[in-house]
Amino acid sequence: MSTFRSRRDQFDLPEGITYLDGNSLGPLPKAAVERGRRTMADEWGPMLITGWNKAKWMELPGRLGDRIGTLIGAPAGSTMVGDTLSIKVYQAVASAVEMRPDRKIVLSDNGNFPSDLYMADGLLKSLGKGHELKVVDPEAVADNITEEVAAVMLTHVDYRTGRIHDMKAITDKAHAVGALMIWDLAHSAGALPVDLAGCKADIAVGCTYKYLNGGPGAPGFIHVRPDLIDQVRPALSGWLGHQAPFAFDLDYRPGEGISRMRVGTPPVIQMAVLDAALDAFDGVDMNDIRARSIELSERFISEVEAGCKDVELASPRDPNGRGSQVSFRFHEGYAAMQALIARGIIGDFRAPDIMRFGFCPLYNTPDEVSHAAAALCEIIATGEWDRPGFKARKAVT
Amino acid sequence: MSTFRSRRDQFDLPEGITYLDGNSLGPLPKAAVERGRRTMADEWGPMLITGWNKAKWMELPGRLGDRIGTLIGAPAGSTMVGDTLSIKVYQAVASAVEMRPDRKIVLSDNGNFPSDLYMADGLLKSLGKGHELKVVDPEAVADNITEEVAAVMLTHVDYRTGRIHDMKAITDKAHAVGALMIWDLAHSAGALPVDLAGCKADIAVGCTYKYLNGGPGAPGFIHVRPDLIDQVRPALSGWLGHQAPFAFDLDYRPGEGISRMRVGTPPVIQMAVLDAALDAFDGVDMNDIRARSIELSERFISEVEAGCKDVELASPRDPNGRGSQVSFRFHEGYAAMQALIARGIIGDFRAPDIMRFGFCPLYNTPDEVSHAAAALCEIIATGEWDRPGFKARKAVT
Repeated sequence: MSTFRSRRDQFDLPEGITYLDGNSLGPLPKAAVERGRRTMADEWGPMLITGWNKAKWMELPGRLGDRIGTLIGAPAGSTMVGDTLSIKVYQAVASAVEMRPDRKIVLSDNGNFPSDLYMADGLLKSLGKGHELKVVDPEAVADNITEEVAAVMLTHVDYRTGRIHDMKAITDKAHAVGALMIWDLAHSAGALPVDLAGCKADIAVGCTYKYLNGGPGAPGFIHVRPDLIDQVRPALSGWLGHQAPFAFDLDYRPGEGISRMRVGTPPVIQMAVLDAALDAFDGVDMNDIRARSIELSERFISEVEAGCKDVELASPRDPNGRGSQVSFRFHEGYAAMQALIARGIIGDFRAPDIMRFGFCPLYNTPDEVSHAAAALCEIIATGEWDRPGFKARKAVT
Repeated sequence: MSTFRSRRDQFDLPEGITYLDGNSLGPLPKAAVERGRRTMADEWGPMLITGWNKAKWMELPGRLGDRIGTLIGAPAGSTMVGDTLSIKVYQAVASAVEMRPDRKIVLSDNGNFPSDLYMADGLLKSLGKGHELKVVDPEAVADNITEEVAAVMLTHVDYRTGRIHDMKAITDKAHAVGALMIWDLAHSAGALPVDLAGCKADIAVGCTYKYLNGGPGAPGFIHVRPDLIDQVRPALSGWLGHQAPFAFDLDYRPGEGISRMRVGTPPVIQMAVLDAALDAFDGVDMNDIRARSIELSERFISEVEAGCKDVELASPRDPNGRGSQVSFRFHEGYAAMQALIARGIIGDFRAPDIMRFGFCPLYNTPDEVSHAAAALCEIIATGEWDRPGFKARKAVT
């Protein structure tokens, strides 16, 4: 566990705050500030336009993609960083439906992050070819994977409850009927081991501002299975995905491999900061992350349940079935979360009644978990939010 | 002109460099480094997730949009910053063709930036409804605006030659036949006065890393005419364009006005840097910028032509017909540009034979222009790139 103690030192965590919301926005890695400064003052300033080559800005999207690839079981050269997760979802679904032109269903579930559903729906409406975005309960996904399905699009770890879909089983089921499988790893990348190659997932997307600590608005990423990428015609066919961006041809020709999933000019400063943030994962085994994550979440559940009878566990009880977060339902969940935040314990709330706590082994400690559990029990026992003098902070988004 | 002398002091320009490539990447504003640091160390670090509200990160896209709006003649609340220019082009064309379902032509010209053509082509291929991206010579655009045209999509200032399209005349022509007009302001915003409202342009897009000095990979922007925005169904329907992003509804409902053109989580650090960069425009009249720009480019043309007979002006000779750049054709243009760069004078080269020089009144001076003109004439007179000991630098992208 000394590994994790030294990792915590790499983050600039504010005094007196117990941060259990890294699944919304990871904290500031100390190295990020200096790296951002350097990118501006030592690269952009003196190098000007030549920074694209001299400082290798142009290589950032692929290099960062490969760094993330090592955390999600993707081979080198199959992951590209850029844009936002929503845009990457669009690329994924657009590619998939075009590869299965005779099928009209994109299957998802109502545990998916809404933006994924919105982006898919927006695309299918644009196409106007009679596609249906079929949204079922998470438990009903497998039974709805039929030969009419072009693509199954799921978020691996549910953003509200932490429930994990069985990536291998569902991917196999999709493949058995000839459908393509798209995984959103927003709450998986950096949080638990993922084996994209082993599961033969077709396309995966994710963001980098949660467990990867890339900062507010850090870019998204997309992975496409190497033996599939040559069949992908990029719907978002931007110049940096062109085979020869600086030839300035009038006609688009998709670039080699995953490079075709690049679109416009990459956000260099934001990517440099992400690059520094990823250093915190150097030399860490995702299996150790997972073991520690389970230790933390098990401790939280048992201490909360021992000290408080009014909450209901909204996450799967089996640690193997949940990601690196724990959610409790409580009818006054919003108010209770405000009271926690007023005490410096930051989790978040998701309507209608879910209190959500994220655990990140890189910086969260068992002591923090116990502190948060005790505070939650005390707040609920006393109805602290109703006591005179309590002042709620503005809702955390 | 003292206005401009003080503006130059706001930029961190490297000693000994004459930078005439701000039309590719604007230089580092001194305030940007501190603003980037502050966003990380004083906001992200201590505020963590609460920065979205406390530091008003969530308001950045609209607030920056309004700041840019003042430079391009767009009313407040009609411009939104985000994503990349390529993505904004996609949003523009997707919106336009859907608003003109019975028309099958998107008209553009071969002077447009290739990525605009690629993005439109990629979209039309996805739609698969028989649309044609019709690409004609710039001079032939007006004659090709017919009642079959859904949208005319043009870059206002040609990236190679600086030739300006007549925004008012072409927009009027498009409207006369019921077509929508999309302008790309990549080489216009911050370079010359633009009057979107006066021209009744339907949609405009642009980038912020050229004349707006937002830094490598700074975000794009999109403007939609206020009386048109309610008709726009966003093709890229991301959660932050939703009417209530944090309600986490399963169904998409477009947000109020231009907010519906938001897609995913905005790149906060990059936007904060852009915010600092835009300060350089505070209190500057775009008409003064234009007058100074013409002074600089006229000086360059006359001094180069007086000292060198081997180059051919590729830009319009009438200053009212060109943007804030001057291009010369020269058969050894690539080599000559390398020789200029070796002397610390940075312009760029566009195939097959164009040497391109951008002039930015905020920091370029008449002395710099004369220095560059004299050097260019000398290099061409002596064939400096062929002389022993000359070592070309790597091509500037």
